[in-house]
Amino acid sequence: MSEIKFGVLGQYFHCPVKGDFEYAAHALILVDQQGTIVSVLTDSDTQYHAQIEALSAHQQLIELSPTQYLMPGMVDLHVHAPQFPQAGKGLDLPLYDWLQDYTFPLEAKFEDMVFAKQIYPQLVQSLLANGTTSAVYFATIHKDTSVELARECLRQGQRGYIGKVNMDEPTQCPPFYIEPSTETALKETECFIQQVLAIEGNEEQLVSPVITPRFVPSCTAELLQGLGELVQQYQCHVQTHCSESDWARDHSQAQYGKTDVEIYNDFGLMTSKTILAHSIFLTPSDHQLIKSTGASIAHCPLSNMYFANAAMQTREILDNDLKCGLGSDLAGAPIPSIFHTCLDAVNHSRVREDGTSTYLPANERGEQGSRISFLEAYWLATVGGGQAIDAKVGLFQPGFEFDALVIDTAIADSNIFILEEMDSAKDKLEKIICLNSRQNIRKVWVKGQLVVDK
Amino acid sequence: MSEIKFGVLGQYFHCPVKGDFEYAAHALILVDQQGTIVSVLTDSDTQYHAQIEALSAHQQLIELSPTQYLMPGMVDLHVHAPQFPQAGKGLDLPLYDWLQDYTFPLEAKFEDMVFAKQIYPQLVQSLLANGTTSAVYFATIHKDTSVELARECLRQGQRGYIGKVNMDEPTQCPPFYIEPSTETALKETECFIQQVLAIEGNEEQLVSPVITPRFVPSCTAELLQGLGELVQQYQCHVQTHCSESDWARDHSQAQYGKTDVEIYNDFGLMTSKTILAHSIFLTPSDHQLIKSTGASIAHCPLSNMYFANAAMQTREILDNDLKCGLGSDLAGAPIPSIFHTCLDAVNHSRVREDGTSTYLPANERGEQGSRISFLEAYWLATVGGGQAIDAKVGLFQPGFEFDALVIDTAIADSNIFILEEMDSAKDKLEKIICLNSRQNIRKVWVKGQLVVDK
Repeated sequence: MSEIKFGVLGQYFHCPVKGDFEYAAHALILVDQQGTIVSVLTDSDTQYHAQIEALSAHQQLIELSPTQYLMPGMVDLHVHAPQFPQAGKGLDLPLYDWLQDYTFPLEAKFEDMVFAKQIYPQLVQSLLANGTTSAVYFATIHKDTSVELARECLRQGQRGYIGKVNMDEPTQCPPFYIEPSTETALKETECFIQQVLAIEGNEEQLVSPVITPRFVPSCTAELLQGLGELVQQYQCHVQTHCSESDWARDHSQAQYGKTDVEIYNDFGLMTSKTILAHSIFLTPSDHQLIKSTGASIAHCPLSNMYFANAAMQTREILDNDLKCGLGSDLAGAPIPSIFHTCLDAVNHSRVREDGTSTYLPANERGEQGSRISFLEAYWLATVGGGQAIDAKVGLFQPGFEFDALVIDTAIADSNIFILEEMDSAKDKLEKIICLNSRQNIRKVWVKGQLVVDK
Repeated sequence: MSEIKFGVLGQYFHCPVKGDFEYAAHALILVDQQGTIVSVLTDSDTQYHAQIEALSAHQQLIELSPTQYLMPGMVDLHVHAPQFPQAGKGLDLPLYDWLQDYTFPLEAKFEDMVFAKQIYPQLVQSLLANGTTSAVYFATIHKDTSVELARECLRQGQRGYIGKVNMDEPTQCPPFYIEPSTETALKETECFIQQVLAIEGNEEQLVSPVITPRFVPSCTAELLQGLGELVQQYQCHVQTHCSESDWARDHSQAQYGKTDVEIYNDFGLMTSKTILAHSIFLTPSDHQLIKSTGASIAHCPLSNMYFANAAMQTREILDNDLKCGLGSDLAGAPIPSIFHTCLDAVNHSRVREDGTSTYLPANERGEQGSRISFLEAYWLATVGGGQAIDAKVGLFQPGFEFDALVIDTAIADSNIFILEEMDSAKDKLEKIICLNSRQNIRKVWVKGQLVVDK
């Protein structure tokens, strides 16, 4: 038993196949000292009972109750870390006012390490408590506090992908929140990458640097060029916003005569470790380019309702097998839960299918066949997200990292109402997705480390 | 002090004016033995300090902490009580499958009093815990268990408006869930009304019977006619579904050559105590008829995303000053919280404003100017709902019933993150609306009676 760290005995859900799910009633999952799943046993396996006894004898067995469910950790592909204090403010404003009145002044404050140290720990703690074991963060333009966010993820044990934001185009950035120069931006980004890779205790790269141009309009061509060169040099993850709105799409066409995907590709920013947030107005050739480069999409349905001007082509993206996961887009949307994002993804696809205007006949309104299922949404939140961050997370299979959470449906004051005699395993899974709140999440592990224990 | 039951000292939010809000920092609200607000004092009132002292001396003062906010109780205008166990199941199915596979078999089970007594207490408790002080319920076709739901509301102290459902059209109802005859339906409905009015302890009509034709397609003309006569006789509340989908709208046109609003009006079902759930496909003359009769609309945004085929004309309804409040539409939507419904109402109006199809140019997509604000949504949830149920609730003003809740933003494990130095009163209110969960709701009063105390 020397190499086994612990075993978890109980029922679990996960989605090995997109659009389907697997439920195991009394599985035993063995996790090694590195936090990797060694084996998943059922009571038909010969070692099952012996292992349970041995683990139990060594106080290495975590046994779930009948109302507890083990589920993969959630992956949030798009979080604006500095906007955490803004979550739930001004979301009925137009995007321009929202950015100018709330977002940019707030992001600018993260030049101050004291302020960053006040906010970031609460953000990371909140996401972990909501079951987000992996998060892909936009920080701010400030190198030092961006590194601090990486340190904070490591401290709390969250799998973090952190980007120092790049934005240097004077016509698109407020004077109080812009890089001093393109050269500085590139130098600081390179320094940021090196510092994150060198953080003490980060030998296994639980936290990773991400090269982060904010989006096409706020970056000069020189900056995008330089960031593309850093991608080649460091083989880093990349994140950015892509064709989020009519305005953004039109701006890129006016400036470059190309789509965002084509522009990012020209600058060497499209790789298999690239995450494109939103990606609303994709052309068929964008789809091809995303697929051929192996880049991923971060679908942020609730934020799309506020700011995207249209609904995501989620159905086509799933059918074309593009890499895709979900993002909360904090604070472009207020809810820090990827479970809730699953619900929003289904909802938004339903609205898209039917369309909106009561003044149009039904056949001129929606886009038939565009709905997605809860199981597809949940697959995106776990397996899809894991593929996007290039980590072996999202499934309970040998060789995968043990990023997991325990949902208890029977806590006091819970909205999850299970009726054993009427609810199938699938019903229970859907109820958990729709109705859990952070209080239902009792334990969270990242890479085999228990990071939340309520 | 003899007639005062208690006083609450602390900060509160409410919305006396649609689209605006009022915040009081250190108000003293005095409630009498009947549960009515007697006065609302601030520290500029001469009696303020003396009242606080006197209440305190008699252990009649409830003092809120600085992180606690008194808010009006929420009004849910549309709840399908028997569907509570179904919340969060199968919501990615088409309506027909959802009704046939889940809803009708479940509703049919409420013939069984034992089953009803298992489910209804948990439903009422769940809604109260989510801050819903007034709820308008569809029960089932069964008289006895529908009366039991009314009894349960009274037992737990919820302001309940309960309808025994009527549905007798054989082509639209499954054989296992239909009235035995039109005559029986009417007799049972009349008997239901009398029994609810006569429930012991219901002298002040905390619970009220509601005449409830399910919707036009599932009722024969004879049934609608008979229900209209009961409305005249008993001056009861009325609730039904109205123009919820393309299919429902078209069905009414095909059968009667009229809109649902016109049909209900012809049968005497449109009164100032009528609540029309959904009301998606309204014509200009429907708007006029709703306004002239004083009927109300129950806007159910999340359920609309699943089943309405289009987005609510919420902007027009607000601008035309039609009476309107919010409904969760449990379990046509899974979330038992009217706070969450506020968020959904804003979201859906935003999607409507922008439209959905990425394949259309922007100017052919949405309906400009149709967004609603958080403050408008919150007004609908409180004052608008109160008007619809014809009760003096939703405001902290003398003469209003004290239906209220205490939100604490500083509980452990909360998603509400307030930053005192950066958040205005309006910011705090929006954060509470967007991010509260039932755990943030610590106390709930209905008519001055403390019904939830966590």
